[in-house]
Amino acid sequence: MFQRVIRNFASKKKTTQLKEMLTNKSLEFIMEAHNGLSAVIVEEAGFKGIWGSGLSISAQLGVRDSNEASWTQVLEVLEFMSDRTKIPILLDGDTGYGNFNNARRLVAKLEQRGIAGVCLEDKLFPKTNSLLEGAKQTLADIPEFAKKITACKDTAKDPDFCVVARVEAFIAGWGLEEALKRAEAYKDAGADAILMHSKKSDSSEIEAFMKAWNNKLPVVIVPTKYYKTPTDEFRKWGVSMVIWANHNIRSSVKAMQETTKLIHDNESLVPVNDRCVSVQEIFRLQNQPELKTAEDKYLKF
Amino acid sequence: MFQRVIRNFASKKKTTQLKEMLTNKSLEFIMEAHNGLSAVIVEEAGFKGIWGSGLSISAQLGVRDSNEASWTQVLEVLEFMSDRTKIPILLDGDTGYGNFNNARRLVAKLEQRGIAGVCLEDKLFPKTNSLLEGAKQTLADIPEFAKKITACKDTAKDPDFCVVARVEAFIAGWGLEEALKRAEAYKDAGADAILMHSKKSDSSEIEAFMKAWNNKLPVVIVPTKYYKTPTDEFRKWGVSMVIWANHNIRSSVKAMQETTKLIHDNESLVPVNDRCVSVQEIFRLQNQPELKTAEDKYLKF
Amino acid sequence: MFQRVIRNFASKKKTTQLKEMLTNKSLEFIMEAHNGLSAVIVEEAGFKGIWGSGLSISAQLGVRDSNEASWTQVLEVLEFMSDRTKIPILLDGDTGYGNFNNARRLVAKLEQRGIAGVCLEDKLFPKTNSLLEGAKQTLADIPEFAKKITACKDTAKDPDFCVVARVEAFIAGWGLEEALKRAEAYKDAGADAILMHSKKSDSSEIEAFMKAWNNKLPVVIVPTKYYKTPTDEFRKWGVSMVIWANHNIRSSVKAMQETTKLIHDNESLVPVNDRCVSVQEIFRLQNQPELKTAEDKYLKF
Amino acid sequence: MFQRVIRNFASKKKTTQLKEMLTNKSLEFIMEAHNGLSAVIVEEAGFKGIWGSGLSISAQLGVRDSNEASWTQVLEVLEFMSDRTKIPILLDGDTGYGNFNNARRLVAKLEQRGIAGVCLEDKLFPKTNSLLEGAKQTLADIPEFAKKITACKDTAKDPDFCVVARVEAFIAGWGLEEALKRAEAYKDAGADAILMHSKKSDSSEIEAFMKAWNNKLPVVIVPTKYYKTPTDEFRKWGVSMVIWANHNIRSSVKAMQETTKLIHDNESLVPVNDRCVSVQEIFRLQNQPELKTAEDKYLKF
Repeated sequence: MFQRVIRNFASKKKTTQLKEMLTNKSLEFIMEAHNGLSAVIVEEAGFKGIWGSGLSISAQLGVRDSNEASWTQVLEVLEFMSDRTKIPILLDGDTGYGNFNNARRLVAKLEQRGIAGVCLEDKLFPKTNSLLEGAKQTLADIPEFAKKITACKDTAKDPDFCVVARVEAFIAGWGLEEALKRAEAYKDAGADAILMHSKKSDSSEIEAFMKAWNNKLPVVIVPTKYYKTPTDEFRKWGVSMVIWANHNIRSSVKAMQETTKLIHDNESLVPVNDRCVSVQEIFRLQNQPELKTAEDKYLKF
Repeated sequence: MFQRVIRNFASKKKTTQLKEMLTNKSLEFIMEAHNGLSAVIVEEAGFKGIWGSGLSISAQLGVRDSNEASWTQVLEVLEFMSDRTKIPILLDGDTGYGNFNNARRLVAKLEQRGIAGVCLEDKLFPKTNSLLEGAKQTLADIPEFAKKITACKDTAKDPDFCVVARVEAFIAGWGLEEALKRAEAYKDAGADAILMHSKKSDSSEIEAFMKAWNNKLPVVIVPTKYYKTPTDEFRKWGVSMVIWANHNIRSSVKAMQETTKLIHDNESLVPVNDRCVSVQEIFRLQNQPELKTAEDKYLKF
Repeated sequence: MFQRVIRNFASKKKTTQLKEMLTNKSLEFIMEAHNGLSAVIVEEAGFKGIWGSGLSISAQLGVRDSNEASWTQVLEVLEFMSDRTKIPILLDGDTGYGNFNNARRLVAKLEQRGIAGVCLEDKLFPKTNSLLEGAKQTLADIPEFAKKITACKDTAKDPDFCVVARVEAFIAGWGLEEALKRAEAYKDAGADAILMHSKKSDSSEIEAFMKAWNNKLPVVIVPTKYYKTPTDEFRKWGVSMVIWANHNIRSSVKAMQETTKLIHDNESLVPVNDRCVSVQEIFRLQNQPELKTAEDKYLKF
Repeated sequence: MFQRVIRNFASKKKTTQLKEMLTNKSLEFIMEAHNGLSAVIVEEAGFKGIWGSGLSISAQLGVRDSNEASWTQVLEVLEFMSDRTKIPILLDGDTGYGNFNNARRLVAKLEQRGIAGVCLEDKLFPKTNSLLEGAKQTLADIPEFAKKITACKDTAKDPDFCVVARVEAFIAGWGLEEALKRAEAYKDAGADAILMHSKKSDSSEIEAFMKAWNNKLPVVIVPTKYYKTPTDEFRKWGVSMVIWANHNIRSSVKAMQETTKLIHDNESLVPVNDRCVSVQEIFRLQNQPELKTAEDKYLKF
C-alpha cells in the first residue's frame, strides 16, 4: 500500500539528517513511533524523522511513564526501531535516567544503536509525565542540568548527534522569565536545540517564548494540547520542528479496542476483516521479501 | 471506557484457568496480543485468555517470524504482558527455540513469568511462518518432537501449565493420516491439547480431522484463513478453543498507517483527533491511578 | 572436588531460609557471589546464603558501582545466580534504583526470580560506593527512605521476603545518634533487619551501635574494613549476620592477573596448569551431568 | 599494578587489528575473557586480542555450553567486554545460533557493539562443547555451512570484520581428508581464517593438517588439550594465531573455591587477605578515576 519514499538525504548519516532538520529554515515534522513496526509506518508515510516517545514506549510495554522500564529496556525498543528505518530517531530520553553519568552512558549506547539524538528534560529522576493532571513537577537545578547537557555533547563521538534540551518551566507552573533563563543556560551548555513544552490548550506560552527568544537556537515544540493552532502560526514564529507526539499509539488503541470488542461480542472474525490489513501486509512490513531473496542465495545448495 | 470484567475464576491460578478452558465442554476463545498494552485491551474486552502470537510479537518488534528475535527477547515481551493481566497467556512458542533442552528451559522461564502455557510446533528451528506463500516447511521427526513435549511437561512445576502440541502436517502438505498419527503421538507424549493448523481458506481439513480424532484430547484451532466458517460449526465438531490469532496487530497497522498519513499530508493533528483515544485513556491503560494512590501513601511525608 | 552439602532446610523456601538466618540466635554468614558460577561455588563451600554484591556485580560486568548497569541488567545476573543455587540470595540493591516505585518494582521482580531478599541503603540514586575514598555521600531523608522500606514490604507477596535497611550514617560521617535514629525509623517502617555499615578499619562504630541498639531488630554487618576484629566479638555483641562482601571477585582478579601474565610472558600454558581447575571441573560446575541424563531420556529414539 | 600497554596500533580499528594479527607473518596470541573484568585483565597483561570463549561465558553465567543462554544474552556480555577494552575481541560464536539468517543477524549486532570478528563452527544448533567426553558431534553439511560463512561476510559492513571458520572434522572423529576438504570449502566461501580444532592430547592432527594445508589461509589453533607442544612448533608449522581458550575462568574457579572454603572454615577474612587484590584495585579496574575526573567537571556547580 505505502511505498518507501526515496529521498535525497537517504545516504546521509541519520545524525546529520536530524541536525539539518533542526538547523535549516523550514518547519520540519517528526512523528511518534513506539516499536519497530510503527517506526516503519512513520518512515513509509513520508516523514523525515521519528519521535521515540517515552509515553508511547512505556505505554506499549504496559508500564507507566515514570521510568518503570529500565533504560536498557527502552534502549532495546529503540534498537529494533532503528534497525528497520533509514530516517533519524530522536529519543525522548526523560531526564537521562539519572545524573550526568547515566545520561552520557545513554548517549554512548544510543550512538552505537544508530539513534540520531536525544531530548533530555530538566526534571528529576524518576520522571512524571508532563501532561498528567495534578502531578507535582519539580525542576532540576539549572547548573546541574546544563552540565548534564554538556556531558552528553562531550560524550557523543559524532558532533551531529543532537542533544535537545527540554524546558519544563511552563509545565511546572513557572513563567516566561524562567523558561527563557533555562533556554539560555542550556544553549550556553551546548544544546543543539530547545524543546519548549506547554500543556495549555492554547499556544500562548509558546508564542510568547518564540517572540522573546528570537531564535537564538532552534526550537522544537509538541502541540499535543494546543493542536488546534494552525501549523502556519508555528512557521511564522520561527519554530524549527514539530513533534506529533503520541498519535500512533492513541489511534492503535482505538482500533484494537474496537476490533477486540467486535470479535469478542460476535465470536467471529467476519465483522473485523475490513478493519485489518492482510497478513501479507504484515509480512511486507516485516521485510519478508529480503529474507526470501537471501534464502534463495544462501539456503539453496 | 472499557471496564475490567469480574469473573469467578479471577482468583484461580492462570495455569488452572487455561487448563479448564481447554478441558471444559464449552468452546472457548483467546485473542492475540503482542505487548503489554494490547494484552490489557484483550483482557478488558472480556476475553478469558491471550494468545502470545509469534507473528504479532515479531512484527511489532520489526523483525521476521523466523526466530530473528532471541527467545529471551520474546520472553521479555511476554513478561510485560503477564505483569499487566490476570487472565492466562498461551505463548506461541514456535519450535521451542531449539531442541528439548531449549524448550524445557523456556518452560521454566515462562512459569516464572506467570505465563500459563506454551504451544510448540513440530517444525525445525529456525521456523518459517505457516501462512507464508511458497515457503518450504519441513516437519520434525515424530519421536524427537514427542520427547520434546514430554520434556516440557516433566519440567513444569505446575501440572496445570499447559503444553499444546501444534501439528503442522496440513501446513506442510501432508494429509489426514499424517495429522492423526502426529496428534496421537503427541497425546501419548503428554500434551494437554492438540493445535491442528490449516492454511486452506475452507475448513475442510479441520473438519476431517475433528471427525476422525473423536476428541481424544482437546483441540485448538486458528481460523485465520477459514474465518468464514461459522463458529457454531467449530462447536458442533467439538473444538475446544479458537485462537483469533493476529487481528490486534492487523487492525493497529491499518489505523496507524491511516493516521500517520493523514497527519503527514495535512501537517496537522486536527483530522485525526477522532481516530485517537485521549491521552487520559493511555494513562488509564498504563494503570496510572494505582501509582497515584501509591504516591499518596509512600511519597507524602 | 567440592560436594554439595545436604542441609535440613534444603526444602524450605529460600525466603524462609534467609528470614530464619536473620532471626535465629546464631551468628550466620553469607558470602559474595557475582555471577552464576561464583554462586555455585559459594553454595558448594557450605555457606547458607549468598550476598549479591553491587560492587562485585558491577565490577565483573566492567562498569562502576554507580548504577551504570541498569537495574534489569543486574536482575539478569541475579536470575542466573538464583537458577543454579538452592540457598537464598540477599541482593545488595543500592537505593532501589530510584524512588519507592522503582524499589517496589524491583522487589516484585526479585521475588519472581527466586531472590530471597534485598538490602536497600539510605542514599540517593545514582549511588556511590561506600568505600570510595573522598567521595561525597548524601543521605536520603529519613521519612522518604522509611516509606520506601514500607512500600517494599507491602509489595512482597511472600512475608518472608526480607527487606534489609542499610544505614549509611557512619559512612557519611554522622555519629551514633544519627545511626540509631535511622535504625529506629527503618525498624518502625517494617525492615526485617538493619545493616549497619562502617568503613573504619576498627570496629568501634559497630560496637558502639550494637551496645546502644540492644537488638531491637537483627543486625547485619560487613567487616570488609575492620576484618581483623575476631568474629567472636561480633557474636558477643549480638550481631545476626556477617557478610563477606567481595572476596570472590578480589581473589579471582588476583588469580586471573597472575595467570594471564604468566601465559603472556611465557607464550605457553605449561606454567599455569596447576593454577587452573580442569575443563571437566568447569563442566561439572555447569551441571553437565544433568544434561547428559536428560539427553539420554529425551534425545534417544 | 598492571599498566595499560601503549601500542602502535592503538588507534587502528579493532577489526583491522584482528585482521592484521591473522594475516601478518608472526604467530599471534589471544587470551580468553568471559566478562568486562577479565577482558580488562587480558588487555592489561599485554595481549593484543581477546577470545570471547563460549565455554567460559556460559560457565560464568552458570549455564551449559549448549546454547542455553540466548544469543542476545551472550551479546550483552560481549558488549560489556568491548566497552572496556581497545584490543579486538574474536567471539566464539558457536554455530551462529541457527541458520545463515541467525548468523548474519549476529554479525550485524557484533559490528554494532565493536566486536572485531566471529568464529563459527560447522556443527548443528544447539551445539555441544567439543571437549565433552562421549558426546555425539554431528557436522553441518559443507555447502550449508559454506554459505553461512558467505552470508556473514556479505553482511559485515566493514571488510576487516573477521569471519573465522572452525572445522570440527577431527573433533567429530573424521580424518585429515575431511578436515582439508572442509577448510578448502570455507576458504572458497570467503572465510578470513580457518580454526582447526583437535581434542587429542598431542598435536599430531594439527601438525598433519598444517603440512597438508600449506597456508592457503591463516590457521588458528586452540591448544587446550595439546598444550605441552612447544609453541615454537606452532611457529614452525606456520600457524597464525593461538587461542589460550579458558584459563582465566579455570584459574578464577580455583581461586574462588579455595578462598570461599577458607573463609567458610575459618569464619574470618584474615586467612584470605593475601589471596585478594585490594578493593582499590577493583575500583581501578572499574575505571573509577575517569568517573572522578568527570564528576569534578560535571557535578560541581
